[in-house]
Amino acid sequence: MPELRKDPIVGRWVIIASERSKRLFDFQSTVSPEKKASCPFCYGNEGRTPPEILSYRDAATEANSSGWTIRVVPNKFPALEAEGEMNRAGEGMFDKMNGVGAHEVIIETPNHEANLHDLREREVEDILWAYRDRILDLRKDKRFRYVLVFKNKGEAAGATLSHPHSQLIATPIIPKRVKEELSGSESYFRYKERCVYCDMVRQEILDQKRLVIESADIVAFTPFASKFPFECWLLPKKHCSNFEEIQKHEISDLARVLKETISRMSKALGNPPFNYILHTAPTQQSGIEHYHWHLEIMPTLTRVAGFEWGTGFYINPTSPEEAAEYLRNVR
Amino acid sequence: MPELRKDPIVGRWVIIASERSKRLFDFQSTVSPEKKASCPFCYGNEGRTPPEILSYRDAATEANSSGWTIRVVPNKFPALEAEGEMNRAGEGMFDKMNGVGAHEVIIETPNHEANLHDLREREVEDILWAYRDRILDLRKDKRFRYVLVFKNKGEAAGATLSHPHSQLIATPIIPKRVKEELSGSESYFRYKERCVYCDMVRQEILDQKRLVIESADIVAFTPFASKFPFECWLLPKKHCSNFEEIQKHEISDLARVLKETISRMSKALGNPPFNYILHTAPTQQSGIEHYHWHLEIMPTLTRVAGFEWGTGFYINPTSPEEAAEYLRNVR
Repeated sequence: MPELRKDPIVGRWVIIASERSKRLFDFQSTVSPEKKASCPFCYGNEGRTPPEILSYRDAATEANSSGWTIRVVPNKFPALEAEGEMNRAGEGMFDKMNGVGAHEVIIETPNHEANLHDLREREVEDILWAYRDRILDLRKDKRFRYVLVFKNKGEAAGATLSHPHSQLIATPIIPKRVKEELSGSESYFRYKERCVYCDMVRQEILDQKRLVIESADIVAFTPFASKFPFECWLLPKKHCSNFEEIQKHEISDLARVLKETISRMSKALGNPPFNYILHTAPTQQSGIEHYHWHLEIMPTLTRVAGFEWGTGFYINPTSPEEAAEYLRNVR
Repeated sequence: MPELRKDPIVGRWVIIASERSKRLFDFQSTVSPEKKASCPFCYGNEGRTPPEILSYRDAATEANSSGWTIRVVPNKFPALEAEGEMNRAGEGMFDKMNGVGAHEVIIETPNHEANLHDLREREVEDILWAYRDRILDLRKDKRFRYVLVFKNKGEAAGATLSHPHSQLIATPIIPKRVKEELSGSESYFRYKERCVYCDMVRQEILDQKRLVIESADIVAFTPFASKFPFECWLLPKKHCSNFEEIQKHEISDLARVLKETISRMSKALGNPPFNYILHTAPTQQSGIEHYHWHLEIMPTLTRVAGFEWGTGFYINPTSPEEAAEYLRNVR
């Protein structure tokens, strides 16, 4: 079982998951240019993944056979494992914990070659519904404090399989970066009595210069302090802390804006590798007035190097105003 | 001039340095396999860099000519610029600041092809002396709050030139990650009345299992909560918060342990790309009883992906105990 270890200085948790690399030097996760015949996420190969947790499929078909449109399965090489108790222990001055959690793969489409922006809006909506359904299910497990949904697209962004998929990890602790967002937005709220994300939405709509897309329910913009070139954030206009409480009309709008944003990034930057990450409230909390769920999209265009590791701040060679203007005009 | 911008939620600063990319899409910093003839860091090409700030050279030679062994020059494409005032300003709800600072390159040897572990101990010592000399000089400038010294080796680790060099950035604010170390180690000190780093040094020497090298003054180990495979930390055994106060005998020992650690990593992992980062106290402070300078070395073996970005914690496929055992035994 993997082990969670805590840095005694800054309190950062690390997952030591030796099982994930079969050999000591098996690091470089290269995207295998696998053929459909051998891809575990393609029709006909359902037996090559662990049994499915959820699928959207033709009612006439059976679980773990073809006929699905979305399929959620446990990760075959999980960073955290679902079975077991959550024992905390010391080791001299250090703290550790069993690597209890869930690590799932959301197979987004049976189409091996599709890009997210090639899918129909209806198909993108279903991916978002699958995220929601899994969060709702996992929050029943009281061992878990947080569910992180993310997508790594392309080898440089950390993907190891090219078939379109996202991932989800449920953790027994609230991650450091989530805590920082929660406490930062709480400080702002205490001072202003307003949600900092609502304020950003208002200012970006008013300013226009960092705006990429505005729809009825969703706004996409390049944030003022973008860490990376062409970083984009998607937020619901209506305040809501938990993604799983999203309304049906917001899902359609989010699907449309997500597909369009990725499509424009793809045109502007030549189908770049990217990560997106759903930022939402911890599973055991809801209705937080100072927190606001959102999706952060970051194309992989620059490398993180010594300066970023040492300082935790970033050098971004493209201003968000230039990036937004480009993304507004690209056709 | 570059601009510093603050994220209104987590307080992270970002440097928007549009000048660094000549064109909007000029991101991929590939290491040019430049010949000696065109390398700006080789003998005879001193005119291709801005005038030197410091050099260790034959007394008979002139500044900005050949004959040096170490040469420090301003970065030609600086992330921060030395001239100007440090104006803070608002932009609606957002905060920004002029990108005032220093960005220097430490050219470590005239030998274009050398690896750090190929240099003689005496030459590595001189690199460390140059770090110290520059920090001592920069801390006289009261606009600067922190000096970060780091090395990016190899393209995957973010280097853009292959000639051996390190970099130094002086910033007008104390970086977020440094603040976290300072406040984390302060909390530990308040509770235990001991330095957390001194405790780690003691425990690692006692435990042996994560120890890589122990010399008279310096200890090298793989930290308990290693973020990355084969991450190594080098610490002085004797408590000291500021690297620039290092003793002469500690410099010789550090040079020897640094060269040996990099040499073993190189043998174990096939001369991997790596970053190292000097963690030291802010320039305007000294004699901090809870902080302890150290050098963190991280080979670039895995990719940072959505999970790490979203949580701020890391999945490490190699336990530090396995890595240390390997590094102890590699020949």
